[in-house]
Amino acid sequence: MSKIRIGIAGYGNLGKGVELAIRQNDDMELAGIFTRRDPSTVNPLTEGARVYKLDDAEKMKNDIDVMIICGGSATDLPEQTPELAKNFNVIDSFDTHARIPEHFANVDKVCKETGHLAMISLGWDPGLFSLNRLYAESILPNGKSYTFWGKGVSQGHSDAIRRVEGVKKGIQYTVPVEAAMDAVRSGSQPELSTREKHERVCYVVPEEGADKAKIEETIKSMKNYFDQYNTTVNFITDEEFDAVHNKMPHGGFVMRSGLTGDGEKTHQMIEYSLKLESNPEFTSSVLVCYARALSRLKAEGAVGCKTAFDIAPAYLSRLSGEELRAAML
Amino acid sequence: MSKIRIGIAGYGNLGKGVELAIRQNDDMELAGIFTRRDPSTVNPLTEGARVYKLDDAEKMKNDIDVMIICGGSATDLPEQTPELAKNFNVIDSFDTHARIPEHFANVDKVCKETGHLAMISLGWDPGLFSLNRLYAESILPNGKSYTFWGKGVSQGHSDAIRRVEGVKKGIQYTVPVEAAMDAVRSGSQPELSTREKHERVCYVVPEEGADKAKIEETIKSMKNYFDQYNTTVNFITDEEFDAVHNKMPHGGFVMRSGLTGDGEKTHQMIEYSLKLESNPEFTSSVLVCYARALSRLKAEGAVGCKTAFDIAPAYLSRLSGEELRAAML
Repeated sequence: MSKIRIGIAGYGNLGKGVELAIRQNDDMELAGIFTRRDPSTVNPLTEGARVYKLDDAEKMKNDIDVMIICGGSATDLPEQTPELAKNFNVIDSFDTHARIPEHFANVDKVCKETGHLAMISLGWDPGLFSLNRLYAESILPNGKSYTFWGKGVSQGHSDAIRRVEGVKKGIQYTVPVEAAMDAVRSGSQPELSTREKHERVCYVVPEEGADKAKIEETIKSMKNYFDQYNTTVNFITDEEFDAVHNKMPHGGFVMRSGLTGDGEKTHQMIEYSLKLESNPEFTSSVLVCYARALSRLKAEGAVGCKTAFDIAPAYLSRLSGEELRAAML
Repeated sequence: MSKIRIGIAGYGNLGKGVELAIRQNDDMELAGIFTRRDPSTVNPLTEGARVYKLDDAEKMKNDIDVMIICGGSATDLPEQTPELAKNFNVIDSFDTHARIPEHFANVDKVCKETGHLAMISLGWDPGLFSLNRLYAESILPNGKSYTFWGKGVSQGHSDAIRRVEGVKKGIQYTVPVEAAMDAVRSGSQPELSTREKHERVCYVVPEEGADKAKIEETIKSMKNYFDQYNTTVNFITDEEFDAVHNKMPHGGFVMRSGLTGDGEKTHQMIEYSLKLESNPEFTSSVLVCYARALSRLKAEGAVGCKTAFDIAPAYLSRLSGEELRAAML
């Protein structure tokens, strides 16, 4: 059987992760990297990998089975996914929860006009966490769901820190509060405030002569980003920053505390968690796995926009239905 | 919209659990209970619920949308599921892993002959645990999977204890070994023996004058059931047994420890766990939730036998695709 030919649109951390994940799946091959930069300045991790201008992607429309779009959700994906769906079957990791319905509608419209298949908002949240919310809430209709994130680096909050005057380098870790998770696990279905669920821990390298007290105060009072949380600001050296804070770990927990039985008094607890040393590499692994599902569903004639909710799990696996039932059920 | 009419075949702990789970889903209704006993001796939990002889089920074929079969896997389901699939769309919780391919083939054949839709081997293992194995292994192809069960009551092992001479009452808890789970969580991908993964804790009420030392020795040396495990036998009073050991808790953990990235050195950990106060009530909740999926897939024309692997998650939820994307993605 011929391999699934994957295109990568956007070659940052996520794009590199996709490139590496393809190597772990020998039913797939890297067919090209597409970039807004000058292709000659891009050095792929894979020897012999070809790099093209994103604007010229259309020329490759017959050489790519699935285009995995690795841009950011704020400005890239709302434009790129519908645009690329004109010529390709596409996958993205659009993660601005509030704007998903709008993004879905835009992508679905293009796909239906051009006969392509798209899968959006894949990764772990949205993605695997969403799946776990859906399964758990469907199985335990009387219950309460909780999502905790971390311990992990939030890009948005790290960017916010770095914009503060006097900050040379900065990184922010979102940390779930153990006591809150234990309260959920007890089955008591607590109401938890934003402050009770997560704390924020920042590491900052100040510019020489910067006013540390002012930096700390500015960070802690930052609206929406930090003011609703217990926030700690640690000042460290350049050397420590580079040595310790050079990774992008993340993870989190989805929990459902439900009640069943006569009088609905029996406690049932479902918990799903991820502990990731690299957030972009894991997200990439999810995207690549769904490229397999996309390629199979497309072969069956599917068209339009889908999410993780619409994909039967068997499509993700290299194993046949028979093999899956024998080995994994 | 008319409600999904559910039949319950077999009215033990699982059947009662299904009856109670239907109450939590107001798009469903209990259409009848089918039993091998004399129907007049069965007292349903639901006032007005009708009880029929299982042998007469065929007469109700036009009054039941989904028959949930609540028999045991050893002898009931291999006969009942194919038999009932002649006249009904059926769901079962067949859990003899090694015989699933054979059971699937038998049920699939009948369904394709009669135009019915079946879903087998639902519950949590097989079922939700299988789903988590599939998702995790598809996303992290380079890795190692682990399943731990417990802390929970094993019916098979409890039955085995009760067959030992001198045992008046007995119950067995399967307990996952914390140290083994922590070793997995460390990312070291340990090889774990049967003895290292689980221990077995038994509570026994001896007959008056019974030889306790002999009971303990007989249990601990029982082939396959106990000889490969560290087993503890506790002798307790009748009163303590009835007061403390009258529930059917269970649960467990599915873990995948995987590696990604350049040189495959980045640790990624996926963990799914259940902590259930009542195993049969939870299993029932899964069966009832899949009855919704069955009814929808049948309406779309699906025929044959399916497992959890074949069902797109969206079919399980009462929410529409639009609502799911807005609320849960």
